[in-house]
Amino acid sequence: MSFTSQTSPTLLLNSETCRANIRRMADKCKKLKLELNPHFKTHQSLDIAEFFREAGISKITVSSVTMAEYFADGGWSDITIALPVNIRELPRIDALAGRVHLTLDIISAETARLVSEKLQHKVSVMLEVDAGYGRTGIPANETERIQNILQYIQTSPRLDFYGFYIHAGHTYDVIGEDAVHQLHQQSLNSLNQLKENFQDTFGSFHLSLGDTPSCSMMQDFRGIDEIRPGNFVFYDLMQAGIGSCSYDDIAVVLAAPVVATEASRNEVVVHAGAIHLSKDRLKMPQEDQSLTEIFGGIVKLSKKGWSQPLSLSENYVLKLSQEHGMIQLSEREFSKVSVGDLLGILPVHSCLTADCMGSYLDENGRKINMMNWRK
Amino acid sequence: MSFTSQTSPTLLLNSETCRANIRRMADKCKKLKLELNPHFKTHQSLDIAEFFREAGISKITVSSVTMAEYFADGGWSDITIALPVNIRELPRIDALAGRVHLTLDIISAETARLVSEKLQHKVSVMLEVDAGYGRTGIPANETERIQNILQYIQTSPRLDFYGFYIHAGHTYDVIGEDAVHQLHQQSLNSLNQLKENFQDTFGSFHLSLGDTPSCSMMQDFRGIDEIRPGNFVFYDLMQAGIGSCSYDDIAVVLAAPVVATEASRNEVVVHAGAIHLSKDRLKMPQEDQSLTEIFGGIVKLSKKGWSQPLSLSENYVLKLSQEHGMIQLSEREFSKVSVGDLLGILPVHSCLTADCMGSYLDENGRKINMMNWRK
Repeated sequence: MSFTSQTSPTLLLNSETCRANIRRMADKCKKLKLELNPHFKTHQSLDIAEFFREAGISKITVSSVTMAEYFADGGWSDITIALPVNIRELPRIDALAGRVHLTLDIISAETARLVSEKLQHKVSVMLEVDAGYGRTGIPANETERIQNILQYIQTSPRLDFYGFYIHAGHTYDVIGEDAVHQLHQQSLNSLNQLKENFQDTFGSFHLSLGDTPSCSMMQDFRGIDEIRPGNFVFYDLMQAGIGSCSYDDIAVVLAAPVVATEASRNEVVVHAGAIHLSKDRLKMPQEDQSLTEIFGGIVKLSKKGWSQPLSLSENYVLKLSQEHGMIQLSEREFSKVSVGDLLGILPVHSCLTADCMGSYLDENGRKINMMNWRK
Repeated sequence: MSFTSQTSPTLLLNSETCRANIRRMADKCKKLKLELNPHFKTHQSLDIAEFFREAGISKITVSSVTMAEYFADGGWSDITIALPVNIRELPRIDALAGRVHLTLDIISAETARLVSEKLQHKVSVMLEVDAGYGRTGIPANETERIQNILQYIQTSPRLDFYGFYIHAGHTYDVIGEDAVHQLHQQSLNSLNQLKENFQDTFGSFHLSLGDTPSCSMMQDFRGIDEIRPGNFVFYDLMQAGIGSCSYDDIAVVLAAPVVATEASRNEVVVHAGAIHLSKDRLKMPQEDQSLTEIFGGIVKLSKKGWSQPLSLSENYVLKLSQEHGMIQLSEREFSKVSVGDLLGILPVHSCLTADCMGSYLDENGRKINMMNWRK
C-alpha cells in the first residue's frame, strides 16, 4: 500500500511531517511558557491525537459536541468546545460534562443563563471576544456587556469562569509577518486590556488565542496563557501563502488518478473533485502579476512521500466539479503526464479536505481513521 | 422528529417536492420521446432511487465506480459511469461488468485500448464530446480523432459502441432561457453532426446530453435519444438563479441552529459551516446593482416544510468557516431571531451539500440514507 499504488482518490498523510509540526509548536510553547491546547477540528482523528499525547498534550479544543463526544470516548478528559453553545444540544452537553472536564464558549448573558439553569453538571465557560475579525465573539471593547455576563457567571453554582478567548481569523486573509503581526497585536492588546479590567473583580483566569498564522509566526505572546491552533498539524497552501509554514511542512496530499489529458490546453483531468478537496480557493499571483484563483497545487508522488510543488504560477488545480478536477500544467509538465498516472494535489485548506475525505493513508501504508460525524 | 425539533445541523428533504421534480422530468421525456437516464450523483441514495423506479426509470448514470457498485448492490442493473475511465480501477470495473450492464465514458483511443485489453467482460462505451464547455470530452469538431477511436472500438470484441454524450456544464454559468438556449443549440448541432458523420459507418447509436438547465428549460431535443440530468431531483439556488426552477421546486434545506446574534451588524451565527453546506457560492445582485457572493439563502422552517426564501438581497449566508455560518439579515428579520432558534438554509449547490451531509430527514421523520463513499 505505497502512496503510488493507490487506485482511487486517497488522502495521503506524511506522519513524520505531521509529528514534526506538532513537536515544533509544542517546543515553542514550552520555550514561551504557553500551554498548547490544540484544536482537533483539523485532523478529527484519535490516531493523530496520539501524536499529541506523545508531545505531552492533555487539554484539547474541538468545534462540535459530536467531536467532543468522539474524543471523550477516546480517553481525552479536558475538552473545550470552541463554538458558541448550541442550547438545543444541552442534554448531550450535560451528559458529556458528567464524564469530562468541559469548557464551553459563551458570548451572551442569555446563553449563560440557559446553560446554568439546564445543566446538572458543572462546566467551565470561556468568553469569546472579538478584536476585529467580525465572526463571533463580543466586541472586546464592550466592557459593560462583558461585565454583565461575568457577573452572571459569578452567581451561578454550575459555571466556572475559565477566561477570555480570541480567534483572530482575519490573519487568514493577509500575507506576511508584518500584516499578521499587526492583527496579532490587536488580539494581545485586547486580551491584556480585559485582564486589567476584570482581574480584580473576577480573580485569576486564562487568556487564550487560536489562529495558526499568529501561533506559527509570532514570538510575542505577552500575558497569554495558552494557544489553540489547529491547522498547523497539517498546514496547507493557504498557510504557506500567508507565511505560516514552508511547502515542506505540509503533511497531507490528495492522490488523484489522471483520467484524461487535453493537449490543446495542456490540461489534465483527474478523479478528484469538490467532494474530495472542498471548494476552498486561493488567489495565486501569476507571472503577468494577475491573480488566478486556484483550488490546489501539484506535486509528484513517490512511494512514501512527495516532491516540492511544481511552479504554482503554471501548475495548479484550475477548476473543480463534483468528482472532476481540471489541472492546468505547463507545456513541459504536461508532456510527462499520461492517463493512468497518479498526481498529488496540495490542498488549499487542509481542514476541509480532511473532513471531505474521512480518513488518511500514512507513508507506512496504515489507514488512519477519523470520526464519522455523518453517521 | 419534525423539521423544527432538530438539535444539530440536519439536511431536510421535502420528498413530495422531490417526487414532483422527478415526475415532471419523466413526463417531459415521455412527451418528447426521450429516455430519462438520470444522474444519481446528486442524491446518492437507494431510498431516493426508489422514487425514480416509481417513475419507470431503469437506466441510471453515476460519477464513480464506488457509486456504481453501491447502486448495483441495490438492484440497479444498467449503469453508466460518466467520468472518463480511471484505468487504475479496471479490476473493479471488470467485476462490476460481470453483474450489470455497464457503460463507460471514453475520450481517447489509448483508454479504449487499455479497457479492451484488460477487461474480461463486455462493456458498452460512450464517447464524451465537448461542444464548448472545455472540461472533459473530445472537441466535437475533431472528426479524425473521433473516427480513430470509433474504428478501434469496432475492432474490439469486448467494446460495444453506445453513442455520443455531451455535458454542457457551461449552462451553469449563464442566466436565463435565451443564454441556455444558445449553448443548448451548440450541443444539439454538435451531436446531430456527429450522427450524420458516423451513422453510415458505425450503425445506430445513442445521442445523449446531461445538464440540468437545458433539460429543465429547453423543449427542442431534435435527434437526441436520452438525457442525463442529475441536479433537478433537488434543484438549488444556483438553478433558480439560472431559471431552471422556481424556489418552490427546491427539495432540500439545511436546518441550522442559531448559536449567536450580533445586533450591531444584524448578523446571526449558526452551527452550519463549510463542512455542512460546501463552499460553493453564487453571485447575487443587490439592491444597489452590485454583486455579493452568497453561500445560501434563508427560509423559515415549519414542522414538515419551509417558507419561500426571505428576500435574497438582504438575507443570506455571508461567510462560512469550518462549522460556523455567518448569516446577514435585514433589521426586521434580525429582530425576530434568538439564540436557540433553528433557521433553514437553501443550498447554493445541492449536490455538494448532500454529499457533505451524508443523509437526509424527510417530512415524515424518516431518515434517508446515502452511500458512504468515505468508509
